[in-house]
Amino acid sequence: MNFDKYITNVPDFPLPGIQFKDITTLIQDGDAFSEAINEMAEFAKSVGANMIMGPESRGFIFGCPVAVKLGIGFVPLRKPGKLPRETITESYDLEYGTNSLEIHKDSLKPGDKVVIIDDILATGGTILAGIKLAERLGAKVVGVCELIELTKLNGKDKFKDIPLKTLIKYDID
Amino acid sequence: MNFDKYITNVPDFPLPGIQFKDITTLIQDGDAFSEAINEMAEFAKSVGANMIMGPESRGFIFGCPVAVKLGIGFVPLRKPGKLPRETITESYDLEYGTNSLEIHKDSLKPGDKVVIIDDILATGGTILAGIKLAERLGAKVVGVCELIELTKLNGKDKFKDIPLKTLIKYDID
Repeated sequence: MNFDKYITNVPDFPLPGIQFKDITTLIQDGDAFSEAINEMAEFAKSVGANMIMGPESRGFIFGCPVAVKLGIGFVPLRKPGKLPRETITESYDLEYGTNSLEIHKDSLKPGDKVVIIDDILATGGTILAGIKLAERLGAKVVGVCELIELTKLNGKDKFKDIPLKTLIKYDID
Repeated sequence: MNFDKYITNVPDFPLPGIQFKDITTLIQDGDAFSEAINEMAEFAKSVGANMIMGPESRGFIFGCPVAVKLGIGFVPLRKPGKLPRETITESYDLEYGTNSLEIHKDSLKPGDKVVIIDDILATGGTILAGIKLAERLGAKVVGVCELIELTKLNGKDKFKDIPLKTLIKYDID
């Protein structure tokens, strides 16, 4: 399926000069949404995932249906203060400042094979945080799957040894 | 399935005196997550849904897998400023102050039959906002489905004529 035609390009959002890739027009279409999840689930199965991790909040949109399709669990990767029990945290750099992400300490077990799913791979900071958090719990990230990849930002360089599947590639930054 | 045993009660989160119902232990379990989605999807199908709406961000966790299972579209109900294109907005009252929620203006069409899916039905303010937004676009909310219902808060009173399905009921406020 040509997923690109379901994505809406929104110029100058959230800041002037940025071409925002709006995924809502894809998920509003039942056929396109289902087919995207099928391809993601096929990838996650092929790398042997027994858990899916997804970053708040658009990672929930794609990660949860994949988990349900494969009958496996889902681990939300959230901003600080959102998860109610004991967490572990990783910080990562943004262009200006840093962000932090957390998972519950009981969310993964040693030996778990995790696929991280999100909507857009940009610089890869979110994914790297997820990889470090999974490793701290003894789990292994066996794959990363993104609807969109912004290839000029070289996010893949942050996790060279882990298989990456992306459904749409844009040669922009 | 007895879904209650997968929910973790967290006392005094996010504020003293509140018993927080943590759903992450349910979605981490592949069988429990899948079975919850099955029951929700069965309900959404029974009321004739052709679109699912889910509030940010835990509504994405349950609403998106239901949409994919039924092969229909998903409309995210988001906080102001998150959706990049033209939106319509509804405000609703909280105990102190108000909140607002938005959907894209092109997210629903006249005649669409919408089921709203979320994790917890408390006072029903979020659901009422979703109902009003759908109606402003000419669509109709034909059902509401929540993993958990806090029955003492009487959220159902806000949408008496619309079928409600909840998988777990707690007699607390």
